[in-house]
Parts: sequence; C-alpha cells; structure tokens
Amino acid sequence: MEDSNNQFADAGAPAATNDVEGQAQDEERDPESNSVLHQPLLLKRNTTLSSSPLAMVGAKVSYIESLDYEINENDLFKHDWRSRSQVQVLQYVFLKWALAFLVGLLTGIIATLINLAIENIAGYKLLAVVNYIEKERYLMGFLYFAGANFFLTLVAALLCVFFAPTAAGPGIPEIKAYLNGVDTPNMFGATTLIVKIIGSIGAVSAGLDLGKEGPLVHIGSCIASLLGQGGPDNYRIKWRWLRYFNNDRDRRDLITCGSSSGVCAAFRSPVGGVLFALEEVATWWRSALLWRTFFSTAVVVVVLRAFIEYCKSGNCGLFGQGGLIMFDVSGVSVRYHIVDIIPVAVIGVIGGILGSLYNHLLHKVLRVYSLINEKGKLHKLLLSLSVSIFTSICLYGLPFLASCRPCDPSIPETSCPTTGRMGNFKQFNCPNGQYNDLATLLLTTNDDAVRNIFSTNTVTEFHIFSLTIFFVLYCILGLITFGIAVPSGLFLPIILMGSAYGRMLGMAMGPYTKIDQGLYSVLGAASLMAGSMRMTVSLCVIFLELTNNLLLLPITMLVLLISKTVGDCFNPSIYEIILELKGLPFLDAHPEPWMRNITVGELADVKPPVVTLCGIEKVGRIVDVLKNTTHNGFPVVDEGIMPHVGSPTGATELHGLVLRAHLLLVLKRKWFLQERRRTEEWEVREKFTWVDLAERWGKIDDVAVTKDEMEMYVDLHPITNTTPYTVIESMSAAKAMVLFREVGLRHMIIIPKYQASGACPVVGILTRQDLRAHNILSAFPDLEKSKAKKGH
Amino acid sequence: MEDSNNQFADAGAPAATNDVEGQAQDEERDPESNSVLHQPLLLKRNTTLSSSPLAMVGAKVSYIESLDYEINENDLFKHDWRSRSQVQVLQYVFLKWALAFLVGLLTGIIATLINLAIENIAGYKLLAVVNYIEKERYLMGFLYFAGANFFLTLVAALLCVFFAPTAAGPGIPEIKAYLNGVDTPNMFGATTLIVKIIGSIGAVSAGLDLGKEGPLVHIGSCIASLLGQGGPDNYRIKWRWLRYFNNDRDRRDLITCGSSSGVCAAFRSPVGGVLFALEEVATWWRSALLWRTFFSTAVVVVVLRAFIEYCKSGNCGLFGQGGLIMFDVSGVSVRYHIVDIIPVAVIGVIGGILGSLYNHLLHKVLRVYSLINEKGKLHKLLLSLSVSIFTSICLYGLPFLASCRPCDPSIPETSCPTTGRMGNFKQFNCPNGQYNDLATLLLTTNDDAVRNIFSTNTVTEFHIFSLTIFFVLYCILGLITFGIAVPSGLFLPIILMGSAYGRMLGMAMGPYTKIDQGLYSVLGAASLMAGSMRMTVSLCVIFLELTNNLLLLPITMLVLLISKTVGDCFNPSIYEIILELKGLPFLDAHPEPWMRNITVGELADVKPPVVTLCGIEKVGRIVDVLKNTTHNGFPVVDEGIMPHVGSPTGATELHGLVLRAHLLLVLKRKWFLQERRRTEEWEVREKFTWVDLAERWGKIDDVAVTKDEMEMYVDLHPITNTTPYTVIESMSAAKAMVLFREVGLRHMIIIPKYQASGACPVVGILTRQDLRAHNILSAFPDLEKSKAKKGH
Repeated sequence: MEDSNNQFADAGAPAATNDVEGQAQDEERDPESNSVLHQPLLLKRNTTLSSSPLAMVGAKVSYIESLDYEINENDLFKHDWRSRSQVQVLQYVFLKWALAFLVGLLTGIIATLINLAIENIAGYKLLAVVNYIEKERYLMGFLYFAGANFFLTLVAALLCVFFAPTAAGPGIPEIKAYLNGVDTPNMFGATTLIVKIIGSIGAVSAGLDLGKEGPLVHIGSCIASLLGQGGPDNYRIKWRWLRYFNNDRDRRDLITCGSSSGVCAAFRSPVGGVLFALEEVATWWRSALLWRTFFSTAVVVVVLRAFIEYCKSGNCGLFGQGGLIMFDVSGVSVRYHIVDIIPVAVIGVIGGILGSLYNHLLHKVLRVYSLINEKGKLHKLLLSLSVSIFTSICLYGLPFLASCRPCDPSIPETSCPTTGRMGNFKQFNCPNGQYNDLATLLLTTNDDAVRNIFSTNTVTEFHIFSLTIFFVLYCILGLITFGIAVPSGLFLPIILMGSAYGRMLGMAMGPYTKIDQGLYSVLGAASLMAGSMRMTVSLCVIFLELTNNLLLLPITMLVLLISKTVGDCFNPSIYEIILELKGLPFLDAHPEPWMRNITVGELADVKPPVVTLCGIEKVGRIVDVLKNTTHNGFPVVDEGIMPHVGSPTGATELHGLVLRAHLLLVLKRKWFLQERRRTEEWEVREKFTWVDLAERWGKIDDVAVTKDEMEMYVDLHPITNTTPYTVIESMSAAKAMVLFREVGLRHMIIIPKYQASGACPVVGILTRQDLRAHNILSAFPDLEKSKAKKGH
Repeated sequence: MEDSNNQFADAGAPAATNDVEGQAQDEERDPESNSVLHQPLLLKRNTTLSSSPLAMVGAKVSYIESLDYEINENDLFKHDWRSRSQVQVLQYVFLKWALAFLVGLLTGIIATLINLAIENIAGYKLLAVVNYIEKERYLMGFLYFAGANFFLTLVAALLCVFFAPTAAGPGIPEIKAYLNGVDTPNMFGATTLIVKIIGSIGAVSAGLDLGKEGPLVHIGSCIASLLGQGGPDNYRIKWRWLRYFNNDRDRRDLITCGSSSGVCAAFRSPVGGVLFALEEVATWWRSALLWRTFFSTAVVVVVLRAFIEYCKSGNCGLFGQGGLIMFDVSGVSVRYHIVDIIPVAVIGVIGGILGSLYNHLLHKVLRVYSLINEKGKLHKLLLSLSVSIFTSICLYGLPFLASCRPCDPSIPETSCPTTGRMGNFKQFNCPNGQYNDLATLLLTTNDDAVRNIFSTNTVTEFHIFSLTIFFVLYCILGLITFGIAVPSGLFLPIILMGSAYGRMLGMAMGPYTKIDQGLYSVLGAASLMAGSMRMTVSLCVIFLELTNNLLLLPITMLVLLISKTVGDCFNPSIYEIILELKGLPFLDAHPEPWMRNITVGELADVKPPVVTLCGIEKVGRIVDVLKNTTHNGFPVVDEGIMPHVGSPTGATELHGLVLRAHLLLVLKRKWFLQERRRTEEWEVREKFTWVDLAERWGKIDDVAVTKDEMEMYVDLHPITNTTPYTVIESMSAAKAMVLFREVGLRHMIIIPKYQASGACPVVGILTRQDLRAHNILSAFPDLEKSKAKKGH
C-alpha cells in the first residue's frame, strides 16, 4: 500500500513540466510534512504556468494525478469493444448491480458493527464512571474516565499516524476531489479502510468532539473501491468479470455509490444519502447513477433495519436503544403558524453568521495545526492526546459547576434522575430526586447528548447557564478537535454546537412563540450545518429522515435557505476551504468571468513547448522523452498523406494522443520493430490486450532497454487514442474549461488556427492545473485587476 | 401568439438543408394535421442525412428549432460583458432569486385556485346528482350528471382545439424536450397558460380519467417563461433588468424552476418536485440550480399551507377538506416484517409488467387517435365528447351492478352510509344502513376515489367484484382518455389503476400477510407508476410526502426498484414513447455503442456541402445565402495572415460562426459599408447593442434590400462568435455527441485533420438532428447490423 505513492517519483530532472502529474521531485524530502498547509496554493509566482503535484490526502502529503474519464479510442480498445459479445455486456450489467448491492450490504454491516462497538465501549466506560461517582469517588472516576479516553485516543491516533495517515480526518474533501478527477493515492486502500474503522471506533468512544458520519462516507467509498478492483492492491482477485471495472469511469460510479451508502448508514437516511452524494460529493452525475446509488442506499437501510430488529431482543450488549435512530421526534406534534416565520428567520440568520465564523476560525486553527504536525509524527500524536486530555477534563469537570435541580414531579421517578449511561436527567453528583443538567449533556456519548438536547416537552430541563457552558465548550472543542490525526467527521460537532445555540435561542424567545424548545434545537443544528457546509436539499432530507417528522419540512427548508444565503456572503463552504487548504486541484463547475479575456493559445505560450512523438518512433527517443519529462500524455504526429493520391503532403498532421502508461507497457513488453514500418492490428493484439492497457504501470526507471534496442522502432499507431478532444488556439480559457470539465478530460490538445506548412500541428496541451483560476492568475497577474473590479 | 410558428416558414426553395431548423416548407399545407404521429420518425430513407423540423407540440404540428446554450463570444458580447458593472451583476443575481420566488408564488396561487374551482364545480355537480338519486329520480340524475360532464368537457376541448392546441395533453414531454434544447413554439405563451388553467379545471371537473398534475407542471413552466420574458409575446415589459434573462440558458433555468414548482404544487411535495425535475425533466443540472428550484418549491409549499389554513375556516365553499393533502396516512401505524418482502416483490413485478403493457397499449391507442385527429378540428372535438359521454355512462351506470352491503356496526352512523359528495361509504341507491361500494369509488372526484381506495383498516369495505369492475373500467378509461384534446395528466389515471390492482392483490394475499389493504393499494399505485414512468427516487419521495409516513420508505423503494427493472425489460418509459411519437428530437445522454464506428467526417460527407461566408462579405451574397438555405449558423472564413509578417498566407482560416438571426439584424439595420474594409469595434457598437443580438429576428422575406445595397459590404467580424466548439473530422460520432450534449451546443463545426493549402478550413457543421441515432441509421443502414448484433 504505502509505496504506491512512490510510483511517479521517478527522481529525474524535471525538464519541461507542462503536465502536473508525476512531476519528478524528491519523495524523500519529507513525505510526512504538512508543508502544503501553510503555502496553501503551492504556487511559485513566476511567469510560467507552473503547478504542483503535491496535496494533502488525509494527513499525508502525496503526489496526485489526474484520472482518465475519457474513453481511449485506440485500435486495441476498438477491437475489444467490437469483439464484446452480448453475454459480456450482460456480465457487465449484472456485475454493476451486484457490486452496488455488495457496497450497500457491506457498508450497512460495517456501520452496524461500528455502532455496536462504540455503544458498548463508551457504554461500559460510562457505567464504570457512574459507579465511581455514585460512591462519591470523584477523583477515581475522573482518572478512569480520562485514562480510558486517553487510551482510546492513543489507539486511534497511533494507527492513523503510523499506518494510514490518509485515514485521518473526514475523508469527504478527498472523495470530492477524487470524483472531480483527482487521484488521491492510498485513499481507498485496505489499510486505510481498516484504520478508519478501528480509528473511528476509538475516537468516538473516547468522547472526542467528532462524529462517525464523515468516516462512514469514507468507509463506504473504500469498500466500493476495493470491491471494484477485486481486493487490496497486493492481493487482487484476477476475476475476468472485474476487468470491466478497471477504468476510472466505472470506479467513479462505484465510489459515488459508496459515498451515498456511507451517508445513508450514518443517518439512516436513504434519500438523503443519494442527495448528499449528488449535491456535495459528485461532480458528474446522470440519471442512471441516481437509480444505482438509490439501490445501494436501499440495501443499507434494509441491513440496518434487520440489525436493529435483531438487537431489540438484547443480543447486542448495550446497543439496543442507542446508535442509529438519533433524533426521532415523530411522536411529537409540531405546531407552528405563519407568525413563527420571524423566529425561524432569526435562527437562520444567526446560523449563517455562526457557520461562516466557524469556517473562518477552523481555517486558522488548521493552519496552526499544520505547523505543529509538520514537526513529525510524535508531535501529531502529542497534539491528539492533549486534545483528548483537555476534552476529558472539561467533560468531567464542568458538570460540577452546574447546580443540582429538582426533578419535575410530573416525570416518572424511573426517568428522573437516572444513573445509567443513558437517560435524560443524569443524577451525577446530586442527591436523590435531583439531577445535574450539565452532566446530562456532557457525561454521555455525543449521540445521546444530541438526543437529550433535542428532547421535546422539557422546557425547564436545562438552565441557560448550563447551556451556555455547553455551547462555549463545544465551540472550543469543535475548533480544536477536527484537525487532529484521528478519523473525524464534521457533522456531529456542528450539530452539537447548533443544537445548543438553537435551544438557547428558544429559551430567549420562549414567551413569544409556540414552537417547542427541542424543535428550536433541531432548527439551530440545521442552520449551523447549512451555514458551515452550505448544503440545502440534502441536509433538508437528512433532517427530515432523522427527525422522522414531515411537518418540520417547510420551516427546515426556510432555515436552511436563509443560513446558506447568509453564510455565502462571508466565505465558501467548509469543504471548499479544506480542499483549498489541502491543495487539491478541484475544478469548479463555472469558469471565472475573467477567463473569457484569455485564450488557450496564450496559456500554451507560457508553458514549455509541447513534446510530440512520431507515429513510428525510435525506442531511444521514447526512453529519452519519458525520462526527461513528466508528461503523462504525448501528441502523436504523422507525416500527412494526400488523400486519394498517397504521396506525402510535406506537412505533419495530428494522429492522436498516447499515454505514458501505454508507452511504458510497450517498453516493458519490448514490442520493438527492426525497421520503420506500420504494423497490422493483429500484430499488436498478439502482444497486448485491452486489459493490459487499463493497468497503470510503474516508472521508467524500472524499464531496462539495451543499447541495441534503443535503435529499434515502435509503431505507436495502435496504442494511440485517435480521437482526443481538441480546441483551437483562439478559444477562450473559459469555454475550454467548460469543455474540459463537462466532458471530464485529462488532456486537452490545442491545435493551431491555421497550420503553416511544416509547422507542428499541436500548439500545446492543457491539463487540469492549467485551467485552475489560481494558476492562471499567477502567470497573468494583470488578469487579477479585472477580477478585482468585477468580483466573482 | 398563434403566428409565431410562422416565423421560420420562409416559403423559399429549400436548397441545401444541412441544418434542421426553420427548414422552408409550406406551413399552410395542413398545420393542424397530426401526420407526425403515424410516420413517427419523419424520416425519408435515403442516403443523405436528412431530418425533419416538424414535431407535435401539444396537439399541434409545429416547426421546431434548437436552442442556443453556448455563449456567443463575439465582440459585442465581450464588450458588453467587460462593461458590466458590479451593480449590474447584483441586479442579475437579485432578479434571478426574485423570479424564482415569483414562480413559486404564482404557481402556488394558481394551483390553489384550480383546486378550489375543481372541488367546487365537481362538488356541486355531485351534490345535485346525489339529490336526484335520493329522490330515486335516477334518469334525471344521469342526465344532469352526463350533461354537466359533457358541458365541462366541451369547454375544455373547445379551448384546446381552437385557441391553444399546445395546451392539450400533459405538456411534460414538450418541457423535457425544451430543457434538452428543442424549442417548442407556442408552448409557454400566455394563451397556452390560460387555456391550460381553464381547460384543466373543466376536464378534471368533468370526471374524466385524467389528473391536474401534468398540467400543473406545464402551468408552472409557462409562468416561469412568461416572467422571464416580461409578459406575453405581444405585450412584453421592456424592463432593463429583464434583458439579462433574454437568453436560452437563463430561460432554461427558470423553466426548470417552474416545472419543479408545478410538481410540488400538484403533490404538495417540495423535495419530490425538485427531484422530479432533476430525474425526469431536466437535461442539464448543477448544484446552484438545485438550490434555486428548492427555493421555488419552498415558496409553493408555504403558499399552499397558507391557503389551506384560510380555507379551514370554511371560506372556500366545498374546498376545505379536499384538494391537496391527497393520501395522508400518517395516522396509520404501519407494521411489516422481513417476510413481507415476498408480497412486496410480487407487487413490484406485476406493477412492472402492467406498467409496460400500459405503455405498449397507450402507444397503439395514440396512433389510432392520431388518424382520427388528423381529419380536422371537428373530429378532435367529437372524440373528446364521445369519451366524456362514455365516461359518464360508466361512472353512473356501473354502480347499479354492485349489490348493496350493510354497514359495519363498528363504524359510526355518520360515516356509513354517507350521502354527501365525499365520504367513504356512499349510500347511492341502497336502503338506509347499507352502502354501495362501487359508487364510493366511481361517483366521486378522482382525488376522493384515490383517498377511498387507499383507506386503511377497511378490510371488508370493497367486494372483489366491485374492485375488478373499477380496475377494468379505469384500464379502459386510462387508455382512451389520455389522447383527447384536453389538458390531461398521466399521474392520476395510473395511480387509480395501480391502487385498484394493489388492493385486489392485497385481498388475495390477505390471509398470508399483516400488511394493510390500504397499504397494498398505495404500493400498487407506486409500482404501476414506476412500471410506466420509470422514475425511482423522485417517485419515492413524492409518495413519501404524499403518504406522510416515513415508515413506508423502505418497502416503497423496493417496489419502485423492482417495477422499474421489470418494466425496462420490455419498453422505454411512457415519456420517451410520447417524445418519439411526437417526433421531438430528444438527445439522449449516452451515444449508442455503434456510434463509435463512424466518424463525424463520414457524417459530414453525406450532408450537402457546408456554406461559408467571408469575413467581409458582399450584401448580395448574404441575402442569397439566407434566401436559399435554411441553415441557422454559417462558418466565417478569413484569408490567413502570416503571424509577425502580415502578408497573406494564401490559405483560408476559420474565424468563427455567425448566426442567421444576427445576419438578419445586420440587413434590417442596413449596417453596410461602401468599401471592403475591417471596422472598428465602436462602429458596430453605435449600431447594435448586445441586447439587440439576443432577440430572434423574423425572416429574410421581411427584409428589403435595394439593388445598390446589394453591391455593398458587411464586416461580419464583430458579430461572429469567434470561439465555436470544433471537432476534428476523425473524431467518432460517439465522442462528438458526448461533447455536443454535455456542453449543450446547437452547431458543432468539423475541421479537417490536415488543411491543404487553399482548401476550406471547415468540413461541415453538425446539428442536433445529425447526431440522433435514427437519422444516422437511415443514412448508414449497415450500421444497424452491428446494432442488432450488440443490442442496446
């Protein structure tokens, strides 16, 4: 696993770098450094269009590549496609659905197991602590509590730091980038999956202020990716059927299914899961995919339901009640009128402001953290453990500040006060018949805390003082916990913060409105989510499915729309901020307006000249080119032949584009010709199959070519993609970017407006990085003025 | 309104038709004929790539055009864009949201008014009939019933036949085509809107087997289109701000908002509305649009809620209970277990088979109807009225076949039997204390019939005999009603059929399952919808929001997925069938596999040679070209100028593409030059603004050019789109189609692989019709073999 990010570090001299991917740099410089974070855009301000192949994946600096969604229409592909029988088409369709089913099934099972583990570990931990407190052995209780949390955090952090740095964090930004066309190495491997599962269990059980929702999305995607490639990198099943999925397009679809299954498993929200993938994660979407992701999430829901039925009979330890159905308020009758639109709007506005403030502050904290993390693995570990200890102290210590409150006589004695690990009115340090409202919120799992603060018809339960402490504490924890090296989701911290502020607002507005405080709490959580994550439809559906109450729909919609609008006035969404911070070259849907003022020809001018190959090329030159450039695609040019005459025109014409991986394959298989001649299709088919071409082959240094062979020839025609997408040099960058992004390209060839006799038929090649606004601006700073004038 | 489909009927000699739009044909041939329907593909089987500009829009044969989504990057546009201030950008954004708000508001209000009208008209009609029946004056009752229905149908049909033929039918296929890039004339005008509203009220009140759901989608889209263009065609507000919306891209977004508002208003399903637009209606989609449509549907829901609250106090005549909340089963506790998966799967399979059978039969019926309708307006009218009379006879007469059943004593006397217009146990012709179960289903509005058949905990209410009659009747009515010339939706007929079959299945399975019969009915309706319309996620959410019961979600999902899968084995969805039948050139998302075997160069070869214009062209030639061709875009070629030298290269190069509309504008404004020279940017800006270019100008025959002027010149450079998307001639048709469809083009220029000196820099132009599978197959019949071999 770990070495696969070395595969493009060919340690040569980076000569002409008109292509991002695999730029030769010294991998050993400091692979673990987070240096990306504090030079966020990785740009040297110079006059050439430069770009960096480095980005943060999880907590690891990796060399990123682009994905190839374009169908490589070369002779081999065409032959394979023509020879594909009806049976093979059926195999493909069957496997597509079988994989979607398996993704749902496995995600559902793993999600249940994670919930089971968390509920049991955290449950027994809390029971032991409660026992100490009942005996008034408070110090012992604290030591046990802090010790257990420390140990659990240690396990999670150790795994993440030493075995799979890509498993740290939520993973959603990386998945977003992957589905946008950026390969994120080690992101979807087996090690990452296992570390993510165990790390997530550890981190959530440790009571840290983070959720299992983000990690579940990542877990779903890992499962999808592993299934699609037939197992972990080193132990892949070479099943014939799976070869259909050995391409970036089908893998993208599978991972989309996986991410929506993950969201569905996190919130038990099948429609919400599909919409989340559609609205937030996926870049390319089509109706057929809607249906397939929906199938996956349906399977997840059935699995979760089956497990819950099974656990109801008490076979699952402390599970049973906890875990999945988090905030069911279907039993509550919700009443509101048109006038309630005012408090709802207020919630929305404040949520938007707080959300964007959270984004702003988290950005700053992550930059500071990157300085700490950069210093090495030990520092990463220490940071995580410090946060754990701080969390433990606050969670255990702060409830002592709250005064005991008598139970409402109308509530049955069995539910107030409670001493178990769950329940809404925790006795903690209070005498019988009284409860500690802050302990109810703090000395419990995060899921239970949310359930308690969402509880309806409990107007007098919480004191404003306790809520304020809770809110402030979770604001601090929410900011300091996210960046540590454990698997962490952003949903739950934001829900916790939002629910607290919502409930506080509800108390303040109490006399003027009929809306229940629990409902305010739900709306507060929704507004903060929208204010920070800027999703609308998917959040709305997730909240709908979480609260299980359709009457909430109109006001939830209103809150979400207002919060998002307000938030958008200040800064981009938290995922966009993280993407930017990690240096992942995400390609936006819309070109910047000023990109109309520059043509692709001008972009090509500031890049090093393009390196082309001849249709029948000397082996020596191929080796040379591969060694001295880092490009991943080379235009293949041919001598023009007069149509109907057959004599050379004296000019060159573009035959197509050949990929580095395919050239390496040719060198490795030594498919060389003694003389300079065109080959027949069968000749190449004897040597390679289409399946071979789908693999990504290692690096040029692995290939040994003898001196004699250097003088031989290779016929590039059969392996050349004869129909690359091209643009004329006078096309504006804006329109070129629309084409690049809508069709999902990796290389875009620029052809001259008029080709003078004997001149090169290719002006240049553009890749993802060349079309990113930041990179263009660094080469053409004068464009910035028009940008500043116009705004975005 | 009516004359706007004449605008491209320039009645000249159609010389070279390499372009679909505005092909000159004799409009007066028979504008009302439905001849499209029985030569469905409008193809002459010849060796040139021909295509027809005719299609059925509503019930009218119209000349269709393509829409221009590409940004026309000519000098004027660039100048306008550069001079756009921050304030103007804000104006645009504000107006975008204001229009989305207004679309929601007006759709909500009109939907309420329609419901109000239908409930009252149908309600008073039914009350009068019930009065006659109580007095046992059965014949009088029938005459009143049939007479009222006849009159209401007559109103609807008269309006549709004589004033707005485009208002007939559901409108959804045409909207789908519009959003795919096919302009459907008169589809979104004010007359259409008014006729659709009144016609829909008439047709639904007349008790015909059709719904208001489809028409509401069309109404929403009409409102959106009218708002976007500032009013009806002849009385448009010339508000400066609205000029930003005078382009096909923004209009497309608005109409998407409108269609989702319509679905939302029909089912009170905001999320379902958005998803319906996403899954079924829209072709291009992006996250920003998701948010805006969601905003519109949120407004609709708020409006509907406000009206319902208002009507609760009894101010709305017979409204009050009826109308919107159709199938609320939130009060019912739904119980089911894993074993219930078997009956659910059975429902799904049967629903899929019945749904595809319905599609198949409806297709046949529509073809027969087209033969009748072709004969003229009177025949259309007679057909509608015959269906109305048949419906009246069945609805009134069939209940007499059912035997009276005694009321269950456990049901309070007030609700069994009932004599009013609503209620579940209609007394009809029965003695007191008994009810007629068939009258409960037939002698009521369609909405109430659905509510009654969905009713839960009424196991013994319906006799299997009555349900069978109901099912068979509605199968017949569902087939014969849809094609008549009134506004009609497909949702309700399918729901009625499906609910009947579901309930029958429920009765058959009764002993083996715990699922309630009402629930079976709901699932039956869902399965038939999925089997016929082939939607999944949106239907699921619509049913979720209709039934207001989240517990139904997993089994609804299962049923929908099974039904769709089964249905897809037999035929395409009903909307696709209708699109095909209407001859609308819908461009699918995916190219057919065999399209990889043909290049765009080969396609261009079977088309007439492309007509190019020079950069500075003689007026005479422009007039000539416009008169003798029907192309809407012409490549502009220039003499090549050596870079850095300035002397001509002797070759021509492609400057860009100029649109017919812009050429007409130049001729109309007489912007001619005495000598052959390049103009300055300010010269053209004195004559035209970007706003002028956005208008679509009439026809060439309206332009008078004197003989002297014919000898003058026009500088086409400033009005030429300098960055059209181009493909090289060796590109496969499949990849070209992906580009065409993903980027949303109207014209795609084919450039030669190698341009010989002095040769034309353009090989051809491809349009939407040239890339449609049927058209390609008609020119290259040998491709069909590979198609037959591979399947689809």
